[in-house]
Amino acid sequence: MKTIALKKDLKKINSPTMADIVELKLMEFLKKTAFQPGDALPKEMELAEALGVSRNVVREGLSRLKMLGLIESRKRRGMVFVRPDILSSFEKILDPIIMDETTLKDIFELRLVLEMGLGELLYRNKTDKDIAVLEKIAKDQDGIGNTFRIKHELAFHGKLYEIAGNETLKRFQIMLLPIFAYVTEREDKPTQGTVNHADLVEILKHGTKEDFNKGMLEHLKPHFDRLENF
Amino acid sequence: MKTIALKKDLKKINSPTMADIVELKLMEFLKKTAFQPGDALPKEMELAEALGVSRNVVREGLSRLKMLGLIESRKRRGMVFVRPDILSSFEKILDPIIMDETTLKDIFELRLVLEMGLGELLYRNKTDKDIAVLEKIAKDQDGIGNTFRIKHELAFHGKLYEIAGNETLKRFQIMLLPIFAYVTEREDKPTQGTVNHADLVEILKHGTKEDFNKGMLEHLKPHFDRLENF
Repeated sequence: MKTIALKKDLKKINSPTMADIVELKLMEFLKKTAFQPGDALPKEMELAEALGVSRNVVREGLSRLKMLGLIESRKRRGMVFVRPDILSSFEKILDPIIMDETTLKDIFELRLVLEMGLGELLYRNKTDKDIAVLEKIAKDQDGIGNTFRIKHELAFHGKLYEIAGNETLKRFQIMLLPIFAYVTEREDKPTQGTVNHADLVEILKHGTKEDFNKGMLEHLKPHFDRLENF
Repeated sequence: MKTIALKKDLKKINSPTMADIVELKLMEFLKKTAFQPGDALPKEMELAEALGVSRNVVREGLSRLKMLGLIESRKRRGMVFVRPDILSSFEKILDPIIMDETTLKDIFELRLVLEMGLGELLYRNKTDKDIAVLEKIAKDQDGIGNTFRIKHELAFHGKLYEIAGNETLKRFQIMLLPIFAYVTEREDKPTQGTVNHADLVEILKHGTKEDFNKGMLEHLKPHFDRLENF
């Protein structure tokens, strides 16, 4: 006779809670009604009535949208729609302590891929003034040798994202670098290749985009090699 | 006499709410105590007592951690710690309808930078079997001409991320592509350069990493040119 482990074989259906549904409905509402930043939402009570749910459930739904940065409470105006800061909730959980190894590796690689893909934008946007600023940054870091310091990385690579003209990418790397440092510091290995920051500036000044891509790869080489050990 | 616009010149201090503080405290607690996935959190009442706040405030704080994907409610066990899905809340708000133009451009560029930076990982990881699958995908798309279709992009570029061995990046591009399509479809312009998917496979088969980078740039060229009009 076949043994049937009812509880094991027949998995519980993971039905969405009322708050899940209200969250979704409110999100659709914000988009469909083409809310503009600063527009006030209907009152909690009105929403509850329209959706046919309790005020508590509406409050839970609103609290979630607040968490996502889609709405804010304003004195005397109640909840208003705001343009979400797309990186803010990402930022809160991007912590190496609570990540599994696979995600840690994925995020480590993500930074490498971003740095490697920057060449085209850099060569489209760079100005002499940019290069001068970058040169100053690299010069100030002269003599630090092969130590990975977040502040030096932020200063130099952050300026690269700035030259590329992408504020989101710049903020993104500020979030990625602590994770990068965490992985890097687990081993006592070189943290940059034979091409350093000053060399990269030199290439940006006189070299081609292809030269720059090669230089950046050489600069990051120890990190790419680190991927083998994940 | 100098007119003082008190309310205008003296900006209100944006002090964190009790729920903000509790959210932060709970987050620190999870990290410091080195919670493992599946570990149950103390009861709401115990947390409220330890923090010296009301149960309502604790509930609000817990609801936020839930939203971030750090905890889940389980029947009979209460709240348990789970490894956060780092992309889930990002996914919910990554919608072109609620983005301002600058963020839209930043995200559009983000995809371009990621595609351009993929070469090194591809050449480190690709196998003959990967190339064969990719070749089949490109062949099935033969004759679609210069139309941008999300499903074709997902199939081909998704496979590239798979070959690169990065699941987070693959999911990331699934989220980025609708935004990419939204921007692309605003104008009636070419959506790929003179190098198509089949050509890229050919390069991966017989060409160098440098050839591939050049090919990818040519493939994406109309999108890079689109950046001028933002």
